[in-house]
Amino acid sequence: MRRALRLAEHAASIGEVPVGALVVDAEGHTLAEASNRREHDADPTAHAEVIALREAARKVGTWRLDGCTLCVTLEPCPMCAGALVNSRIARVVYGAADPKMGCVDTLHALCTEPRFNHRLEVVSGVLAEECADVLRTFFAARRGEEKPEKPRPTT
Amino acid sequence: MRRALRLAEHAASIGEVPVGALVVDAEGHTLAEASNRREHDADPTAHAEVIALREAARKVGTWRLDGCTLCVTLEPCPMCAGALVNSRIARVVYGAADPKMGCVDTLHALCTEPRFNHRLEVVSGVLAEECADVLRTFFAARRGEEKPEKPRPTT
Repeated sequence: MRRALRLAEHAASIGEVPVGALVVDAEGHTLAEASNRREHDADPTAHAEVIALREAARKVGTWRLDGCTLCVTLEPCPMCAGALVNSRIARVVYGAADPKMGCVDTLHALCTEPRFNHRLEVVSGVLAEECADVLRTFFAARRGEEKPEKPRPTT
Repeated sequence: MRRALRLAEHAASIGEVPVGALVVDAEGHTLAEASNRREHDADPTAHAEVIALREAARKVGTWRLDGCTLCVTLEPCPMCAGALVNSRIARVVYGAADPKMGCVDTLHALCTEPRFNHRLEVVSGVLAEECADVLRTFFAARRGEEKPEKPRPTT
């Protein structure tokens, strides 16, 4: 998760919402690392998780990521939770919960939905505070840029 | 939807599960067309809908597909339903319902989920029989290849 945090910080440094993800195989080797690139790629699917899953699959030569783990700083959205199910990955480990779009635990539980053709192990809350802080800092800075704070009256 | 059916048939012709999709803008111009390419691309995210959304976004130069419509032969899975929400697209039109993975109406209603930051109009059942037939024919042929039918006894 420390590495995923660095990837999230990289996203922030290029003006993207800071989320980072990596895919590790059953032996612990990193297959893919990614930062969110939605703005830079002008691609609604370019979340860190999707990019990492695509690269990992390319690396192993099949769309099936049996036995692998995806580690991500923010709880996956419906698209990314669905992509995890579709990839047949074994496990997702995430940091901060996402009250707005989280679909692993918060709004839906798509990764453990018994009616789908694959379910995966879920580990949540790993370095949750640090992961949430990267997002908080990014959005606070952006709000600061958009609405420069007025000098306070000195009364 | 007739064009999406042709795209699904193309997928079948290259050994892919036959699903086809296209994205049309508010003026009715086709921005992107795609067939499922999961096997060929060794990519768990290469469903027709995701490929079409990515290409349409590249065409318009932004990840936001405001005012556009995606038309697809099969009810989108959780990943694709989530990608539709993420793209801020206005409408999805689909053919056959998917009892196994359908997440627009059947198992979940992700495209109209009131808690997400975007909802879209849903039109279902367009040429549903033809869309389902393409899938039935494909899977029947595949089962035939896997388990060649024994000649029936001539009693």
